[in-house]
Amino acid sequence: MRIGVIGSGALGLYYGALLQRDGHDVHFLLRRDYQAIRQTGLTVTSPRGDFHLAGVNGYQNSAQIGPVDLALVGLKAYANSHLVDLTRPLVAPGTSILTLQNGLGNEDLLAAAFGSEKILGGTAFLCCNRGQPGTVHHLDQGAMRIAECVGGLSARAEQLAESFRRAGIPCEACVDLNKIRWEKLVWNIPFNGLCALTGLATDRLLACPEARKMITEMMQEVVAAANRQPLTTPIAGDAFIARMLHLTSGMGPYRPSMMVDRLQGSPLELEAIYGVPLQRAAAVATPMPRVAMLHALLAATEPQAL
Amino acid sequence: MRIGVIGSGALGLYYGALLQRDGHDVHFLLRRDYQAIRQTGLTVTSPRGDFHLAGVNGYQNSAQIGPVDLALVGLKAYANSHLVDLTRPLVAPGTSILTLQNGLGNEDLLAAAFGSEKILGGTAFLCCNRGQPGTVHHLDQGAMRIAECVGGLSARAEQLAESFRRAGIPCEACVDLNKIRWEKLVWNIPFNGLCALTGLATDRLLACPEARKMITEMMQEVVAAANRQPLTTPIAGDAFIARMLHLTSGMGPYRPSMMVDRLQGSPLELEAIYGVPLQRAAAVATPMPRVAMLHALLAATEPQAL
Repeated sequence: MRIGVIGSGALGLYYGALLQRDGHDVHFLLRRDYQAIRQTGLTVTSPRGDFHLAGVNGYQNSAQIGPVDLALVGLKAYANSHLVDLTRPLVAPGTSILTLQNGLGNEDLLAAAFGSEKILGGTAFLCCNRGQPGTVHHLDQGAMRIAECVGGLSARAEQLAESFRRAGIPCEACVDLNKIRWEKLVWNIPFNGLCALTGLATDRLLACPEARKMITEMMQEVVAAANRQPLTTPIAGDAFIARMLHLTSGMGPYRPSMMVDRLQGSPLELEAIYGVPLQRAAAVATPMPRVAMLHALLAATEPQAL
Repeated sequence: MRIGVIGSGALGLYYGALLQRDGHDVHFLLRRDYQAIRQTGLTVTSPRGDFHLAGVNGYQNSAQIGPVDLALVGLKAYANSHLVDLTRPLVAPGTSILTLQNGLGNEDLLAAAFGSEKILGGTAFLCCNRGQPGTVHHLDQGAMRIAECVGGLSARAEQLAESFRRAGIPCEACVDLNKIRWEKLVWNIPFNGLCALTGLATDRLLACPEARKMITEMMQEVVAAANRQPLTTPIAGDAFIARMLHLTSGMGPYRPSMMVDRLQGSPLELEAIYGVPLQRAAAVATPMPRVAMLHALLAATEPQAL
């Protein structure tokens, strides 16, 4: 496949590197890592084996990439005002657009611009941070899950998932995008925000009994709001929460992406991870008071609020 | 009156200085400020007029103070394991003990040791911070309110309030200690913890619409729990909350005592301001979820938790 990666943070660089290593024709829209990758290529460190790609197609302008079979979107949601313009040059009649961005609302922007039948969404339980320019540190991963924006299980989604698996990316095609998005939020809403707010990695929070209880209660709020949305099947609350907590314990001192954003002085993905989910919860009369409080604390401590 | 001040932080030093200036025989148990006050006395800066006391009775051991008419307790509640031992040498048959400490549970400790009929409690809306050793900066104040631990309006409480007013401390004797404690918590619970957690002064929090909403909701939780306690009359929720917010707006960029404690690396008064109130709310089946969440965030970020 000819693949364009829009938003080459840790996630975009890592998945793009695996796909290129498997023989796909990958083109990266780069910002921070442009000079380094043009000069020395892209290095991935991983417990599954380090590797280096010497020849990497990097660009500073997505018009230079041109039409692709698959546009892989990993842009930070706080940059969504640029999302459509950055993606447009990659889109031709046969193009699929897969957004792996966090939170809710990203597909809607893409669907409004390019038509919902072009769009897939996905979630990735990926522990991955950027290192020096040109280097990505892959720490751990769970499965990627992808689904059609229009719903239902498609041959296209199955084929994409198969291509990803061949490239070393565990991936499952799913029937309900809304459900996988909300399931991801059950993790993202407590851990991203609490780690960003407190400066504590996931293991420190889980080691504090009061914080662990609070995390569990926030997860219960998210599950309750999710299960009032039009999902194909409900999220299995307690079992799913127990699995998320167990999975997180195994991640050690992990710094979620929002904590990394705050530590490096970047904006936070507040609207996609908190604002839109809170609106959708309110729309079904299932308030999430603890989530709203975390949102308020994060908003109050954003630099532009000070 | 012969007065002993136990816990000479900003509050103890300020009230003690006013009482000494008015002619009372005041004796301070000192720690941080001992050397400075022995050498150069005590300085108060205040919009109501600065003043300096040259001869101040300061001690490092409360046995040197001996029996007093009034023991004024301003000890940080996190040091309550020493409260009874520090107070005991001051107590004689005619002694009154007035604790102005924050939160709930302080009177119970004193009553168990010395008998509840000796004990009064009080709250002070006082904006006051310590400066260099030997200096207290008084910024603003509302009324002190005091009441008998055993309940009811006593001649003793009225006389004490009158002495305080003569010394320049606005003070009102009240009938219901439990009510004035809970009313103070309506302010202390949101502002002390949120400012300590975020590092933002009160004006910054109130300027953020999400944070202002969260503060209002936390105040509503505290009022609801308070009004299930055995109060003589309920707290007038919305009107009282509106008054607290208005009063706080007038305080400018105020740093509550818990924020000061955290900035200087001291422990926080978590048990008195959060732990005990949460237990009493739970005991009347009126949970305070936002308050519990703030408690958890503060507990998780305490140094000993890290």
